[in-house]
Amino acid sequence: MATVITRITAHDFRYKLGEGAGSDAVHRNPQYGYGATHLETEGSLSGTGIAYTLGGGTQLVTEAITLLAEPLVGREIEELMADFGAFQRSIAEHGQVRWLGPHKGVIHLALASITNACFDLWAKARGVPLWKLLLDLSPEEVVRLVDFSYLDDVLTRDEACAILREKVGSRGLREEVLQRGYPGYDTSVGWFAYSDEMIVENARRAVDAGFTAMKLKVGSPNPEDDVRRAVLVRQAVGEDVNLMVDANQAWSVPLALEVCQRLAPVKLGWVEEPTQPDDVLGHRTIAQAIAPVPVAVGETVSNRVLWKNFLQAGAVGIVQADCTRLAGISEYLAVAILATKYPVKVIPHVGDMGQMHHHLVFFNHIALGHEVQFLEYIPHLRKHFTTPAVVRDGAYQLPQEPGCSTGLKALENV
Amino acid sequence: MATVITRITAHDFRYKLGEGAGSDAVHRNPQYGYGATHLETEGSLSGTGIAYTLGGGTQLVTEAITLLAEPLVGREIEELMADFGAFQRSIAEHGQVRWLGPHKGVIHLALASITNACFDLWAKARGVPLWKLLLDLSPEEVVRLVDFSYLDDVLTRDEACAILREKVGSRGLREEVLQRGYPGYDTSVGWFAYSDEMIVENARRAVDAGFTAMKLKVGSPNPEDDVRRAVLVRQAVGEDVNLMVDANQAWSVPLALEVCQRLAPVKLGWVEEPTQPDDVLGHRTIAQAIAPVPVAVGETVSNRVLWKNFLQAGAVGIVQADCTRLAGISEYLAVAILATKYPVKVIPHVGDMGQMHHHLVFFNHIALGHEVQFLEYIPHLRKHFTTPAVVRDGAYQLPQEPGCSTGLKALENV
Repeated sequence: MATVITRITAHDFRYKLGEGAGSDAVHRNPQYGYGATHLETEGSLSGTGIAYTLGGGTQLVTEAITLLAEPLVGREIEELMADFGAFQRSIAEHGQVRWLGPHKGVIHLALASITNACFDLWAKARGVPLWKLLLDLSPEEVVRLVDFSYLDDVLTRDEACAILREKVGSRGLREEVLQRGYPGYDTSVGWFAYSDEMIVENARRAVDAGFTAMKLKVGSPNPEDDVRRAVLVRQAVGEDVNLMVDANQAWSVPLALEVCQRLAPVKLGWVEEPTQPDDVLGHRTIAQAIAPVPVAVGETVSNRVLWKNFLQAGAVGIVQADCTRLAGISEYLAVAILATKYPVKVIPHVGDMGQMHHHLVFFNHIALGHEVQFLEYIPHLRKHFTTPAVVRDGAYQLPQEPGCSTGLKALENV
Repeated sequence: MATVITRITAHDFRYKLGEGAGSDAVHRNPQYGYGATHLETEGSLSGTGIAYTLGGGTQLVTEAITLLAEPLVGREIEELMADFGAFQRSIAEHGQVRWLGPHKGVIHLALASITNACFDLWAKARGVPLWKLLLDLSPEEVVRLVDFSYLDDVLTRDEACAILREKVGSRGLREEVLQRGYPGYDTSVGWFAYSDEMIVENARRAVDAGFTAMKLKVGSPNPEDDVRRAVLVRQAVGEDVNLMVDANQAWSVPLALEVCQRLAPVKLGWVEEPTQPDDVLGHRTIAQAIAPVPVAVGETVSNRVLWKNFLQAGAVGIVQADCTRLAGISEYLAVAILATKYPVKVIPHVGDMGQMHHHLVFFNHIALGHEVQFLEYIPHLRKHFTTPAVVRDGAYQLPQEPGCSTGLKALENV
């Protein structure tokens, strides 16, 4: 049965957070927001895609969605997804709008939202969850979802296809994760504005809930505060818990080197976003200085070309690619495939609160052979999703509902 | 007399071009557009700032201007510009909107437009053209215009100030350029859609008009076409003319290497935008392969952090920084100062059709000691500016009117 897109609407959703929640050294008072794309069809099926924001300016993303999504009207979803890489490229390379990026910022976030809506509709049309949709595709079908342009010097489409093919035979060895679930880590332990008492209490509670990894915001104007808070959490949870810190770009390169040295005794799992995300060579300097502690980066890395540079330069250890920052699930796949060629771990940032990514990490492991790690868990928007991700004993459970789990309650009444 | 900003308006201007004009291998059918910021005051003075677009999506830039410029209302211009770097940083680091970049795309273009409007109003309030405004500032005043954050590992504010101070004594040796004018080069010779006959005729006409340098668009699906056209122009103008080619990102890295090798016999002045502008390491590979022919890049290099990487990596020879892509004149200054530390030439791309840049190149030479080169000349929007740049015998003449020469006729009736 043909599933034809008949109407596209764009939506600006913003959610107030609890006192101090979501705060970091650079974004002191965020809202969480989504520029959402809603695809309607002749039948009852619809698709929802999201791109993540921090509230302010979300209307720019929705306006860009309206501008760019128009060629989708009248397209049949199977036919569209059979060569989605070409379609995505045609939008990304729009002869006039391209100038406003290229491949970054507002227009790229809009493309993320549009792309994710197409995947959601496609999975629903097939009646399967995203992870199963992707795992059931042939290597040839997977690579046709992806725009590989500008990657040729490190990864061609044929090579990507070969990487996928090479892993097919051993998939059975990795499918156990579908039963076990995928471990999570707790990001909400140590928001920047939380008091010392709160972060200690949250850290203990996270351990009680089954988490073995958690994150603390750093980047204080006074580095002493970072050290004190990291030591407090380390003391509260013991040596066996994986404790990561996140500076959210608060540091210059020299300051990052200085503060990381002072944090070293705390034995960090990683240092996240030490400085501005376009600074590939700065990240390399920091990565070399703090090794073997890895540098994590990704929530603000705009596109596959920057990822190529991060990987080529050895500037990243933890690839936090996010399909609500990149041009959706398809560009995420490009980065996840590319990352198999480098000595890195892929641990997505979850601008989607893990909704799509808790599908994608199963694909990462089974189809691409990326090690099972842990996926970021942020519960603040649970009540706004129609099928919020389920985390039990510190692990994401395998989603069962058709689609990408991006349904938003606010769209049910649209 | 105090000049207080009382009202800010944003404007979406788009200009149709002549048949084939402005076309390149990637942007086949552009319009030229400006997201313009207009600052009104209690008196008769006003300021106009522009950020360049290719038409489509300009409304996103104007909406972002409206979103971000609001803190300017009520500000007195001298007081504002006395510490403009801090003001600019406060906008660039907006706690929520920052996410939509950071420091790139639509919101950064909006900041460019806002910043340039402030400089225009400031120069008018002092009754001087931009070049004179800047040359009359002390080194300390210049660096206070600039946000140096994230540059610390290669350039601090103090070091920037020292660079400016060190050049003060020898300024007199370089002021001769004010009388001579600044050489231009003709970009409009070889637009992508122009026929072989047209580019040959245009090239000859450019030589007759006094230009000693010109540019040809390349990046054809069939590289033979690039080679044929380049040979035709070279034959038409002889060996003494500087002939540059511009691929506008049409190539992957491997393809760039291949086509550049085939173009080598034509003896190129530079190869511009061989590939995607975030690909610092790709540009380095190309730069090393085609040396001593330099790689030129800039019209789509988003911010000073990417510039830092391009310079550190030795990935660029011709710095085409553009104050309508960067966050306006102040971030342009950061890049121009930074570039003094590297073996590069600074030859701006002119999204402003040279209106602001024909001020800035005089400052480049006199205050920063950058060699006199030639500034891009594109006449297509002359009739839309109130005081279009004057090019005589192939050289930009020194502008005399107060301000940044960004006045648009369409704003006179607003």
